[in-house]
Amino acid sequence: MWMSELSERSGLPVATIKFYLRDGLLPAGEALGATRSRYDEPHLRRLRLIRALVDVAGLRLETVRTILAAVDDESLPLHTVIGTAHVQLSSADSLPAPTGASRRRVDRLLCRLRWRVSADSAHRVALARALDSLASLDFAVSDELLDDYAAAMRPVAKREVSSVVSSAPEQATEKAVIGTVLLEPVLSIVRRMAQEDASSRMSRRGHR
Amino acid sequence: MWMSELSERSGLPVATIKFYLRDGLLPAGEALGATRSRYDEPHLRRLRLIRALVDVAGLRLETVRTILAAVDDESLPLHTVIGTAHVQLSSADSLPAPTGASRRRVDRLLCRLRWRVSADSAHRVALARALDSLASLDFAVSDELLDDYAAAMRPVAKREVSSVVSSAPEQATEKAVIGTVLLEPVLSIVRRMAQEDASSRMSRRGHR
Repeated sequence: MWMSELSERSGLPVATIKFYLRDGLLPAGEALGATRSRYDEPHLRRLRLIRALVDVAGLRLETVRTILAAVDDESLPLHTVIGTAHVQLSSADSLPAPTGASRRRVDRLLCRLRWRVSADSAHRVALARALDSLASLDFAVSDELLDDYAAAMRPVAKREVSSVVSSAPEQATEKAVIGTVLLEPVLSIVRRMAQEDASSRMSRRGHR
Repeated sequence: MWMSELSERSGLPVATIKFYLRDGLLPAGEALGATRSRYDEPHLRRLRLIRALVDVAGLRLETVRTILAAVDDESLPLHTVIGTAHVQLSSADSLPAPTGASRRRVDRLLCRLRWRVSADSAHRVALARALDSLASLDFAVSDELLDDYAAAMRPVAKREVSSVVSSAPEQATEKAVIGTVLLEPVLSIVRRMAQEDASSRMSRRGHR
C-alpha cells in the first residue's frame, strides 16, 4: 500500500508516520523510484503497536524504541524480551537510590514468596523506591498488603505468561510485549473500577 | 524552616521548589520581610507528595495540579476526591473514542460483576479504548481474563479503600490519593515480578 493508505488505515497523519520512519521506529518501505515507497501489513501492525504503547501504556518514544529493538532482535530468547520490556517500565535511573532497609524488605518478600526474580532486577529497585516514597508520606505499606498483592498477581501472571509462551514462535515476542506492557493498563483500570465500586458502597455510610 | 532547610529535607533543588511556588502547586510560606519566607511541615509533606506523584506514579505536573486541587477542596466528599484522582489517571480526551462494541462489552462486564461504576465514568471509556487497541493488534482479551482481573482486584480494592475510609478525616483525602494513585505502581511492579518468576520457570522448558 502507499503512504496515503497506510495513514488512512492506521488513523495516523502522514507527518507522524514520516517521523517514525526517520526515527527508525518504523522500518523503511520498499522503495519504488526516488520519492515513492510501498508499505505492507507488517508496517501497519508496527504502527498500531507503537500507538498502543504510547497511548494506552503511556510510554515515551525512547522507551518504545528500546522495547521494539528487543522484539526485532531474533537472537534474544523470549524470557529476555519480556525482561527488557519490563525493565523499561521499572527503570528510572535519574531517581535517588532506595534505602537499604527497603531493599532488604523487598528481598525478604521475594524470598518468602520463593519468586525467581534476578538479584539485579530493576523491579527490586523500583519497588523499594516506591516503598520509600510512601514512607516519606507516613503511608506504611504493610507486609499483609504486599502479600495480598502477590497472592492476587501470581495466578494472573501465570495465565498471562503461559498464553504468550504457547503462541506461535514468530508471534511470541510481540505477544509477550503486548501481554506484559499493554495488559498492565487494563488491570490498572479494572482496579480503579473496583475501587470506585468499593468507595461508592462505603461512602453511603456517611464518611467524608 | 527557611527555604534552604526545606530544600535539604525534601532533597529538591531550591529552583524546583520556587517553580512549584510560582506554579501554585505549593502554597506560599509565611512572609517575613520582602524576600524571606518561613515554611512548615505541611510544606515539606506537600513537596514529598508532588515528587511521589511525579516520580513513582509518573504523572505530569498538570495532572498533579488537578489532583491536589481536589485534595485541598474541603467541600468535596471523599468519594469525589478518589473519583477525581482516578479520572485523571484514566482520562485522555485527545484519544479517539472507543468502538461501540467495546463500550458494550465493558458495560456487560460491569453489569455481570454488579459493580457500581457511574455510567459516564472515564474508566469505562479507558477500558474500552484499551480493548480496541489490543484488538487492532489481533490480541483478543478474553472474558475469562477480564473476570480473572476483576476477581483478583476486588478484595485488593476493598482492603485499600476501607483503610482510607477508616483514617482520621483530616488525613483521609490525602490518604485516598496515596492509596489509589501511589499504590497502583506498587501493584504493577509486583505483577512484573510475578511475570518474571512465571517466565523464568516456563522458559526452562526451552521455548524461545
